[in-house]
Amino acid sequence: MDTKNNDINYNSLFIGGKAENGENYINTLTKLLRSHMGWRKNYIPSDIATITDKDKQQPDYQATLKRQNDVLDEVDHRLRSGSVPWMSAGRYWGQMLSDTLTPAMIAYSDAMLWNANNVTLECSMATSQMEADVGNDLADLLGYKDGWGHITHDGSIANLEAMWYMRQFKSMPLAFKEVVPDKVKGLSEWELLNMSVEKVLKILKTLTPEQIDAVKAHSSRSGKNIQKLGKVIVPYTKHYSWLKALDISGVGLDQMVQIPVKSDFRQNVDILKKKIKELVAKKIPILGVVAVVGTTEEGQVDEVNKIVEFRKEMEKQGIYFYIHVDAAYGGYARALFRDENNHFVEYDQLKDMFKQHHVFNTDVHIDKSVYEAYKAIKDTESTTIDPHKMGYVPYNAGGIVIKHESMRNVISYFAPYVFEKKTATAPDMLGSYIIGGSKAGATAAAVWAANKTVPLNITGYGRLIGSSIETAQRFRKFLKTLQFNVNGHIVKAYPLDNPDFNMVDWVLKIDGETDLKKTNELNEKMFDLGSFYDSRVYSNLFLTSHTIFRKDTYGDSPVPFIEKMGFTKDDWEKVGAVTLLRAAIMTPFLHETKDFDYYTKGIAKAMNEKLSQIL
Amino acid sequence: MDTKNNDINYNSLFIGGKAENGENYINTLTKLLRSHMGWRKNYIPSDIATITDKDKQQPDYQATLKRQNDVLDEVDHRLRSGSVPWMSAGRYWGQMLSDTLTPAMIAYSDAMLWNANNVTLECSMATSQMEADVGNDLADLLGYKDGWGHITHDGSIANLEAMWYMRQFKSMPLAFKEVVPDKVKGLSEWELLNMSVEKVLKILKTLTPEQIDAVKAHSSRSGKNIQKLGKVIVPYTKHYSWLKALDISGVGLDQMVQIPVKSDFRQNVDILKKKIKELVAKKIPILGVVAVVGTTEEGQVDEVNKIVEFRKEMEKQGIYFYIHVDAAYGGYARALFRDENNHFVEYDQLKDMFKQHHVFNTDVHIDKSVYEAYKAIKDTESTTIDPHKMGYVPYNAGGIVIKHESMRNVISYFAPYVFEKKTATAPDMLGSYIIGGSKAGATAAAVWAANKTVPLNITGYGRLIGSSIETAQRFRKFLKTLQFNVNGHIVKAYPLDNPDFNMVDWVLKIDGETDLKKTNELNEKMFDLGSFYDSRVYSNLFLTSHTIFRKDTYGDSPVPFIEKMGFTKDDWEKVGAVTLLRAAIMTPFLHETKDFDYYTKGIAKAMNEKLSQIL
Repeated sequence: MDTKNNDINYNSLFIGGKAENGENYINTLTKLLRSHMGWRKNYIPSDIATITDKDKQQPDYQATLKRQNDVLDEVDHRLRSGSVPWMSAGRYWGQMLSDTLTPAMIAYSDAMLWNANNVTLECSMATSQMEADVGNDLADLLGYKDGWGHITHDGSIANLEAMWYMRQFKSMPLAFKEVVPDKVKGLSEWELLNMSVEKVLKILKTLTPEQIDAVKAHSSRSGKNIQKLGKVIVPYTKHYSWLKALDISGVGLDQMVQIPVKSDFRQNVDILKKKIKELVAKKIPILGVVAVVGTTEEGQVDEVNKIVEFRKEMEKQGIYFYIHVDAAYGGYARALFRDENNHFVEYDQLKDMFKQHHVFNTDVHIDKSVYEAYKAIKDTESTTIDPHKMGYVPYNAGGIVIKHESMRNVISYFAPYVFEKKTATAPDMLGSYIIGGSKAGATAAAVWAANKTVPLNITGYGRLIGSSIETAQRFRKFLKTLQFNVNGHIVKAYPLDNPDFNMVDWVLKIDGETDLKKTNELNEKMFDLGSFYDSRVYSNLFLTSHTIFRKDTYGDSPVPFIEKMGFTKDDWEKVGAVTLLRAAIMTPFLHETKDFDYYTKGIAKAMNEKLSQIL
Repeated sequence: MDTKNNDINYNSLFIGGKAENGENYINTLTKLLRSHMGWRKNYIPSDIATITDKDKQQPDYQATLKRQNDVLDEVDHRLRSGSVPWMSAGRYWGQMLSDTLTPAMIAYSDAMLWNANNVTLECSMATSQMEADVGNDLADLLGYKDGWGHITHDGSIANLEAMWYMRQFKSMPLAFKEVVPDKVKGLSEWELLNMSVEKVLKILKTLTPEQIDAVKAHSSRSGKNIQKLGKVIVPYTKHYSWLKALDISGVGLDQMVQIPVKSDFRQNVDILKKKIKELVAKKIPILGVVAVVGTTEEGQVDEVNKIVEFRKEMEKQGIYFYIHVDAAYGGYARALFRDENNHFVEYDQLKDMFKQHHVFNTDVHIDKSVYEAYKAIKDTESTTIDPHKMGYVPYNAGGIVIKHESMRNVISYFAPYVFEKKTATAPDMLGSYIIGGSKAGATAAAVWAANKTVPLNITGYGRLIGSSIETAQRFRKFLKTLQFNVNGHIVKAYPLDNPDFNMVDWVLKIDGETDLKKTNELNEKMFDLGSFYDSRVYSNLFLTSHTIFRKDTYGDSPVPFIEKMGFTKDDWEKVGAVTLLRAAIMTPFLHETKDFDYYTKGIAKAMNEKLSQIL
């Protein structure tokens, strides 16, 4: 890898599959920890220590210390013997596990000693500011010029928070009608239930603090009207946290409408449009629409732009719905489209920019539809974006960004003016604007350090995520070349060929096999032999994950894929499921051709051995 | 401190206000990190490293490394210059910030490098088992013999999860009626809405998996019937996360009934009983009752036992309500009542046990009502208990425990039988039983290491938390002795005298001052001078927090307290609020009399100086 200008060389920023940067990690961390110890020691230097040398010589001090060390040895033992070696540069092709950025880990391990709690500024002056910085940076990354974001515990919580926003905003106009009817004079209930977020905010601006409180007390937080608010539309490829979000929020699963995906496993926007028009015709409001950017099973990117455009159309007809983007997985990849000044570039400039910053070693094509989807995120109301996924920050650190900072006042629990007395730029009481409560300041320090070291544009995350996309595209090509000859059987690999992002799913199939069920069993067995179920996982030479596409959620979308393998629609009707091996390609270590070739040669051999065990 | 038997000497287990154990911390952590590096290096020893020495010599490798180090220096700088020195053994008397247990911190910093995600066993074999262990240990601590628990992101999420349980269980009988009417034949809606958790579980046991799925689809997760389920009763001293829980769950704030506290700031159970009887008379069901064990502002412990007894009475009359204990803050203190074999001892054996294990240096009285409240937790349906509070684990690690493991099947998203194929003792998909999704395996390792090093009984957490309670009682006595003579004014301290736990609130008042408002202002100024608002916080010699009791939430409960200061009920009516300085006494470093005396002398002097600036 060689880079120019300020391009990040991320070889410096991971411990490495072989702990190549391990000693440096320990040394850098130690330096920070010593600095922390100095901070403790030097606060009121004349104060006495309460743990004296004499105390340390007590037998029970020593016995307790030994007890701690025994417990920590057991932690070490359990981790070593029980962990899947996902850190391998090229033998683990499975779950969303990857080496994470050293600045994030070091910052966490250091900041943990300060034990800040970002729920309130009083407990976290330094790290609350870092969380505010992170929120601003993520808002900027997503193109929200007036946005506000914060770190959530995880993506499921971020999605639940989005559900909360949707529900609250949809209910506000009904509350206006009850509390300040003059403000919505002449509007029918249908019109109230189709009021835009911006219009709600505009009306709120005209109210007194007391009126705002009263309106909020009549909003969906009261428990009233929730069943009036309409349908939440999600694709079949949604994460299951959306089921939980509808459940927990009281909106209810009965209000969920699921949209089939196309054969490319993106949400079928034509069906979405049709469905919305049908609902509108029946005077059923649309509470919100969810688009997924980076589905967890296929890595696909819904066409956010088409949904945004459709909403524009519908708004002219008086129909409005909230759009949330679940980019928990794919959000950080928006950096791929931002130049070193954080400007979102034109599509036809992409290739040059990639070249200039040495993003790819091979010919990688980024589809225009993916570009347009990312571009359009800025026009949606909120986005889930998880630093602990493509931000390469350790678990757990999720995130949410809303389009307008003032949106948060619709879910908040204290009138903003209460806290303006002596406030800093970070909110005094973050806990009153979010679902969670106590939250580690260390997480904010970790994400902050990651995002400051690795810029949220082409020079930083763009290069890093670009590399993962390139590896995925190469891996797909590699799979297509595979042909095993095992005990008289020819076995080939059939990857899904939908390269929106960095997820690769594939099926191994015996030539001439006409039984889909048996093929599923073969892949299930391959998973068993190459997964955490294998008791000698540490010596396993090839590890992977798996997924199952079932007819009840995928409809007929997988048919073209199974037809490519030689199965028929009838097989699909009969079996109703296809088992795929699945890899989230996050490894940052296979950018170089020689490394990619070494490891893929190795796993091809390992696959062959596994097949020999099965066939 | 000297201990016998297996008693923990917690002097070994904290870094210390003066970093007394700082070098040991770094050395122990380094040992574990090196072990981790070995694990990376030795997986398939013949595999090539992808980051070579040549790579490390590249200018951009070096430049990126420098960039990382600059960012980490900035992290260090911001933390040092922006943090409140809460780690001081005796100068910080404020928020719930304390030194945390080194085994937890070291385990976290080590386990983070393995980046496990406990949402699914596939990503966290070692740490999922640790989380299961933690859940079992916390269930045992709380006395739930058939219980199940897990780590939550924080206490607010745990409370929301409890709200989810309450809502689901209350709605299940209505769903039985719709889906399997035979099972509830002859029961009126009122009887259905008063069905106990145990009875619901008993009926579920008789159903097929398909019937269970159908019932769940008709439960409150559908969105239906939520407004029928009745009232959620909480004390006025509840944490504000309960407002969010009612809001987010769709139950709604209109369903919240608040119970006043007595002058001891415990929930007034007589009023609670009266209220429940009133609601029952109106045929309004009780969705649930919340008792707080360790209120965040006063440290008070609600009389859980009386609520449990009352429910028993009411059950005889066909009335049932779910009881949840919010012991986010106080939960770990149940260890104080458990002997070294984890048996909950009789009240009259407590004194001897304390003596035997050298828990207290002075004469500390634990009130029988507090003992009974803790004892009765085992008879409630669920409890919030946060390791990151009195578990002395770093932020963030909350927790929830339910009385019966099978309760989790009422909120889960996959039928349990689906995951029994190859499962271990830990659930394959924890994410399907909880609100959150991705969760750091490192958190589980941290809590596990803390709970294994410090037993959940008198020898471990009992001694540690006992010390904090003793320090709180001493601090109260110390405050009572204070008398400042400042520029002709005599100023005295008036602590709240409700020693249920380790929280101390107090007011500074000028002798002869008859204006409550002016007294409030004095304390507000004291806070400003001794809090994070002070720009030179690192050289501040006395730091504290504050709280305000307002008439709209506290009713007249504070009247006896302000009367003790010489104010009248009329003053209370007029001003309607009293400002108190507030300290969560978590410091584990003031157990020795000499240390306590040194630091209290120091802060008395500092208070005097601050008063001189004000008066």
